[in-house]
Amino acid sequence: MKIYDIEGFPNPLRVRIALAEKGATNQVEFVPVDVMGGEHRSEAFKTKNPDATVPMLELDDGTCIAQCNAITEYIDGVFDGPSLMGTTPAERARIAMMNLRAENGLMNAVGAYFHHATPGLGPDLETWQCAEWGNKQKEIASATMAYLDSVLADNEFLAGDSFSVADITAFAGLGFADFAKVDIPESLTNLQAWRAKVAARPSIAG
Amino acid sequence: MKIYDIEGFPNPLRVRIALAEKGATNQVEFVPVDVMGGEHRSEAFKTKNPDATVPMLELDDGTCIAQCNAITEYIDGVFDGPSLMGTTPAERARIAMMNLRAENGLMNAVGAYFHHATPGLGPDLETWQCAEWGNKQKEIASATMAYLDSVLADNEFLAGDSFSVADITAFAGLGFADFAKVDIPESLTNLQAWRAKVAARPSIAG
Ligand SMILES: N[C@@H](CCC(=O)N[C@@H](CS)C(=O)NCC(=O)O)C(=O)O
Ligand SMILES: N[C@@H](CCC(=O)N[C@@H](CS)C(=O)NCC(=O)O)C(=O)O
Repeated sequence: MKIYDIEGFPNPLRVRIALAEKGATNQVEFVPVDVMGGEHRSEAFKTKNPDATVPMLELDDGTCIAQCNAITEYIDGVFDGPSLMGTTPAERARIAMMNLRAENGLMNAVGAYFHHATPGLGPDLETWQCAEWGNKQKEIASATMAYLDSVLADNEFLAGDSFSVADITAFAGLGFADFAKVDIPESLTNLQAWRAKVAARPSIAG
Repeated sequence: MKIYDIEGFPNPLRVRIALAEKGATNQVEFVPVDVMGGEHRSEAFKTKNPDATVPMLELDDGTCIAQCNAITEYIDGVFDGPSLMGTTPAERARIAMMNLRAENGLMNAVGAYFHHATPGLGPDLETWQCAEWGNKQKEIASATMAYLDSVLADNEFLAGDSFSVADITAFAGLGFADFAKVDIPESLTNLQAWRAKVAARPSIAG
């Protein structure tokens, strides 16, 4: 299987952490995509992934899977190691919910701020911006950080006692926040402690 | 288990169809939420669901699950009947991807148009609007309809040969488009034929 992506970008990082958690990084061929040069918007790439986003998974039979959540579903299902998406229906539902909150409220909110209310990836790629929307999403990102902090007051990880895809999404979202200069308040001590703990995992610290 | 929702709204419909597909509608107690009166934004409701959205699932042990995708994960796992989310990792990944495309590109795009570029649910509830964003999302909804039509040229259902949660999300999204007066072009004959076929399913036609 191949992962089309670009190192150092927040969504690709989600899938790279998932692979590392499963001990499966070396079972994947990484194909670099020249995002800054717009390669992900070429007809050739959009034929494989009409979302025009990275990361994208290509299976050996040619099936292309876009969207981190869908890719992680595959990775979690085919590789051994602790489950990232949960095993019982209740566990899976709680993880899915927390993952969506981290994705919508943090990762995508920071992304909307970055792409709409800052120069983002530059004028060649940011062909339509809406600063009013982007600035509102920054407020949502800040509110989500406070919410996640409150969850972590009572839970070791975002969806309970075990590390899950929700932690991956939120961790990558905080990295994006740093990059986009969205403040992560020191006063959110549960979030800060959880972030340090996650950063120390072998899948991330190496 | 309880589902907190309001009849006739597009996201609650997704979960109601999922339950009906599983033959499980009568195993659930529906608790009506006065969305037009703002009940979903009350402190009491937000303690259960900080997203302040319906539908919300409450399990017998008090666990609350928000977000259609998370709720459907639970429903699909606990009730018998054909799987809505897929069984093999590749199937699950493809369904998750198509479901996300239907959700982001259609359901949520129509929702953003409705809530931001029309009077939406009225001035008491639409306390912050961004028409420029809403109008752009309407374009995305139209483009997604054309994309879904192209997928249905080669597939009986959105994620392949079997009905899945992706079909539920897209079907509910088209209903929302009608309601919000976002045109569903007659020229999209694959989409129109698929819609008629889905509408005739016992889970929907009754
Ligand atoms: N929801 C998507 C988001 C993917 C995404 O936006 N990726 C970024 C890189 S972090 C991208 O491809 N950006 C290209 C662009 O903005 O044109 C997912 O889960 O994969
Ligand atoms: N992504 C959410 C969307 C839920 C949602 O937006 N529901 C609407 C009803 S269709 C709602 O609660 N609206 C309340 C509001 O707009 O204040 C999900 O999957 O459950």
